[in-house]
Amino acid sequence: MADAEKTVALPGVMPDRRPETASPPEDFNPIAIAKQLLRGTRAGALATLDRNTGHPFSSLVNVATDADGSPLILVSQLSTHTANIEADPRASVLLASTGKGDSLAHPRLTVLGTFANISADAPDAARVRRRFLSRHPKSRLYAGFGDFTFWRSPILRTPLKSSRSRKARSNT
Amino acid sequence: MADAEKTVALPGVMPDRRPETASPPEDFNPIAIAKQLLRGTRAGALATLDRNTGHPFSSLVNVATDADGSPLILVSQLSTHTANIEADPRASVLLASTGKGDSLAHPRLTVLGTFANISADAPDAARVRRRFLSRHPKSRLYAGFGDFTFWRSPILRTPLKSSRSRKARSNT
Repeated sequence: MADAEKTVALPGVMPDRRPETASPPEDFNPIAIAKQLLRGTRAGALATLDRNTGHPFSSLVNVATDADGSPLILVSQLSTHTANIEADPRASVLLASTGKGDSLAHPRLTVLGTFANISADAPDAARVRRRFLSRHPKSRLYAGFGDFTFWRSPILRTPLKSSRSRKARSNT
Repeated sequence: MADAEKTVALPGVMPDRRPETASPPEDFNPIAIAKQLLRGTRAGALATLDRNTGHPFSSLVNVATDADGSPLILVSQLSTHTANIEADPRASVLLASTGKGDSLAHPRLTVLGTFANISADAPDAARVRRRFLSRHPKSRLYAGFGDFTFWRSPILRTPLKSSRSRKARSNT
């Protein structure tokens, strides 16, 4: 309450909000922010489609990225999200940086894509495994379990929000 | 790497993983954990359906809860997720607690539901507004803007994961 009252805003104007038509601020580099989120974030929110009802389903996953930035996940076949992407591989992964205060004031990236299973004998399986385990060393303990599989989602579209006032849309 | 090597696991057994058929540990109280996540979490990952393609879309929202635990959000009509729930109100909200180490070792709750807009003249509009602003005092600055609207998602189903080994499914 006290915090809210300290902030002074003109009537009808959101603090720091820029008009939709304004050119981006000079210090706003969406590509650098997106790369940082892709390369540094360890966990993300996965959105999948419920395999029975099509209801959007949000769940937590550990993430890494392949050389081209595609999100990589290592998931159990006993999990709901795995059953969902097996039925319909369309998904998105939210990568959000955390920090003090309002969560919406920090950068986050939605990575839309379609997951494909990386089978253990695929030519790139070793690279995927190495890259994932380098971000998540403890996952080594179950990466070899029969019900755990690696999946990769080539990036389709990545809307970025760096704060309430700064957003960008990029295609790769 | 060093961390992973320190943990000792039997071959083929995930540390702390319980068999699917085991009875829950005595100190596992899924209802208390779910309430704590619902009552205390300030931001969540919203999964919606892309209004044009049906692709699952994950985005960050500030959340509060109504008296019965239903998630409440305050969103801009300029946002993608708002356009999505206007076209198809089915959604889920992931509420995750954060902490040190592996994100998947901390409790999180997926709240599935269907959002309904709370119009400013609805009988419960004042309560919804009061409850949301009490968790997010700074949102007072734009809660009155014409393009910001409150939505509530009565809970349909809430799968809870308290760690890799502990999960529960509840219906309300």
